[in-house]
Amino acid sequence: MTDVADALALLKRGTHEILLEDELVKKLESGRKLRIKAGFDPTAPDLHLGHSVLLTKMRQFQELGHQVVFLIGDFTGRIGDPTGKNVTRKPLTEEEVKANAETYKEQVFKVLDPALTEVRFNAEWMSQLSAADMIELAAQSTVARMLERDDFEKRYTANQSISIHEFLYPLVQGYDSVALEADVELGGTDQKFNLLMGRELQKHFGQAPQVVMTMPLLEGLDGVQKMSKSLGNYVGVDDTPGVMFNKLVSMPDSLMWRYFELLSLKSNEDIDAIRQSIESGANPRDIKMELARELIGRYHGDEAAANAHKSAGNQLAEGELPEDLPEVEVIFEGEQAPIAAVLNRSGLANNSAQAKDMLGNGRVKVDGHVVARDHMLATGRSYVIQAGKKRYARVILG
Amino acid sequence: MTDVADALALLKRGTHEILLEDELVKKLESGRKLRIKAGFDPTAPDLHLGHSVLLTKMRQFQELGHQVVFLIGDFTGRIGDPTGKNVTRKPLTEEEVKANAETYKEQVFKVLDPALTEVRFNAEWMSQLSAADMIELAAQSTVARMLERDDFEKRYTANQSISIHEFLYPLVQGYDSVALEADVELGGTDQKFNLLMGRELQKHFGQAPQVVMTMPLLEGLDGVQKMSKSLGNYVGVDDTPGVMFNKLVSMPDSLMWRYFELLSLKSNEDIDAIRQSIESGANPRDIKMELARELIGRYHGDEAAANAHKSAGNQLAEGELPEDLPEVEVIFEGEQAPIAAVLNRSGLANNSAQAKDMLGNGRVKVDGHVVARDHMLATGRSYVIQAGKKRYARVILG
Repeated sequence: MTDVADALALLKRGTHEILLEDELVKKLESGRKLRIKAGFDPTAPDLHLGHSVLLTKMRQFQELGHQVVFLIGDFTGRIGDPTGKNVTRKPLTEEEVKANAETYKEQVFKVLDPALTEVRFNAEWMSQLSAADMIELAAQSTVARMLERDDFEKRYTANQSISIHEFLYPLVQGYDSVALEADVELGGTDQKFNLLMGRELQKHFGQAPQVVMTMPLLEGLDGVQKMSKSLGNYVGVDDTPGVMFNKLVSMPDSLMWRYFELLSLKSNEDIDAIRQSIESGANPRDIKMELARELIGRYHGDEAAANAHKSAGNQLAEGELPEDLPEVEVIFEGEQAPIAAVLNRSGLANNSAQAKDMLGNGRVKVDGHVVARDHMLATGRSYVIQAGKKRYARVILG
Repeated sequence: MTDVADALALLKRGTHEILLEDELVKKLESGRKLRIKAGFDPTAPDLHLGHSVLLTKMRQFQELGHQVVFLIGDFTGRIGDPTGKNVTRKPLTEEEVKANAETYKEQVFKVLDPALTEVRFNAEWMSQLSAADMIELAAQSTVARMLERDDFEKRYTANQSISIHEFLYPLVQGYDSVALEADVELGGTDQKFNLLMGRELQKHFGQAPQVVMTMPLLEGLDGVQKMSKSLGNYVGVDDTPGVMFNKLVSMPDSLMWRYFELLSLKSNEDIDAIRQSIESGANPRDIKMELARELIGRYHGDEAAANAHKSAGNQLAEGELPEDLPEVEVIFEGEQAPIAAVLNRSGLANNSAQAKDMLGNGRVKVDGHVVARDHMLATGRSYVIQAGKKRYARVILG
């Protein structure tokens, strides 16, 4: 019983909601190796630490001996948006799905234990399903129930069109839980409705309903908005060790607890001990460096983590890192902006001659990488730019 | 062009709505043999003249040389109502569907020309359709569009549950038109929404959209309510020639034009000529007898039609038929009532001794057939009962 209580405390850490906690306790008490499902879109993964909140929780289940099912939704991905209205949901080819799946695996196995991970594709069972089976699934929910889902309700009220097939996708996701005989499904808070559909369909097919666990969105480095590449407040899983280090160590002190809670594999006891060390006068910057080492170690190995502070930038040695990187916003027309113009207009260079000069001498770094004179930056996101030894800023390109 | 104008005038006779008439004209002008679709449920057919309104219009298309597709919706019939809530939509077995289809064929070929009729079952293509195909179909309509359908709108507003699969059935019906490459689809006015779905899906699949023709419901013999077995105002297609004769000749004079319009295969010119004969003083009863002969001939052959007035009842010779049959309602508990009790309680016998007496002497006829002493009548419908020479009534068993 103490084991189960400890396990539950770990699993609840950072978790937004568990439905139903009683059922989770019973499943943990059963001593069975549970099947923990989480589904991912097969669109090109462009992962950052925000995406690893789920993976971290999955890994905690693995530490407790349970089996993770990493599900790639290739069936719906290959259908895309059949109305053709949503250009961001173009149908993917089989090759694209495969390539994206490989990228996924490469990244997720930096968090997950391959020995306790099953990678599955839902086309495996969905492509066997007939129209009649789909109709039977559809009979298990009602129009009113679907329109309770937040986004559907908003669109319906605002007279924005909802295609009928959009009502079928939650049913497909729910049926995946039936096919996988999931004991637990993890997802973001925005997935709650779809996760609950899995419970309904499992009951219809005579299975014990899965426990639903929703995880919150991770705040970005600003501590306010959700982590997002387009907001520029992210740590990418393929950021270099130095860039990761700079970003993580420069976050507000108060934010680090959230990152420990949602991203660290340390035990609750270890985290409590760290809190106590701060109360006893430890330097928060040291604690952030410890967090950075854990996360950098995960993506780049322990050696890179130990040396990350050295590669964090020639001039930004450990201890000299700015608490708050200056932020500059520069507006450009069009989708791209030349680096020389960005340096000039952001004030990182005094004039365009100086900008070209620094670029020519390889003294300009964007997100930790030296860039050439003709480098172009995409607008609509932000960059950490260093120009020469002393000048650096987070530049937001509007 | 005159041919097309004549054809159009015949096809428009009695028709509630044509969408779009221009398109129908073009299809008629093309000189092609058009494909005329009408769909029927595979539930046990209990046909009356009301059901033959569609068949009559289909036959008119055949007279013009076009091909009729008599579609039996066995795919949806075999799924039934997967929620299990609707007991009247129990899934049918393959054997039940086959047996019902045979009954259908037997009856419909009394109206349709077999040489120009194709009997099809939609499981032929629907059982080949995958869940992914179903999702593609579902993408072709929206929730708002579905909720425009009268019955859905009412149920949604009244907070009555609508299962998602109910949104899929109109799409299945629409896809049938694609599979059959229908040029025209006929249906009742309540089918308009579903028929229009066929147009949408045909366009999506690169076909010219079908013309939609809706036919009104036939008024029953009372001339007010729609013809219905449970209302007792019907002429069954398996009524005997005598019963058909009695029922048709006793309808109100004003109603006969509606029956000519919707049930007769006479040309518009012939019907105009009949109208003129009435204006010139012909006896409406003679015209009703002419109508009765056409319809009885269709179901029982010309000889039976010529002699129907003789079998219409011993005591009800031609010319003695009551304009209005007395109507009596008797309420029974349970699903069946003994004939003796019915005679007694309806006043057709003075007491139960007399009832048994008349039954014993073979002097009681129900819908034209002599019945025995232990005969049971199903409740919830009506019967024309004759007891002895002079007593007759339409008895409604509640």
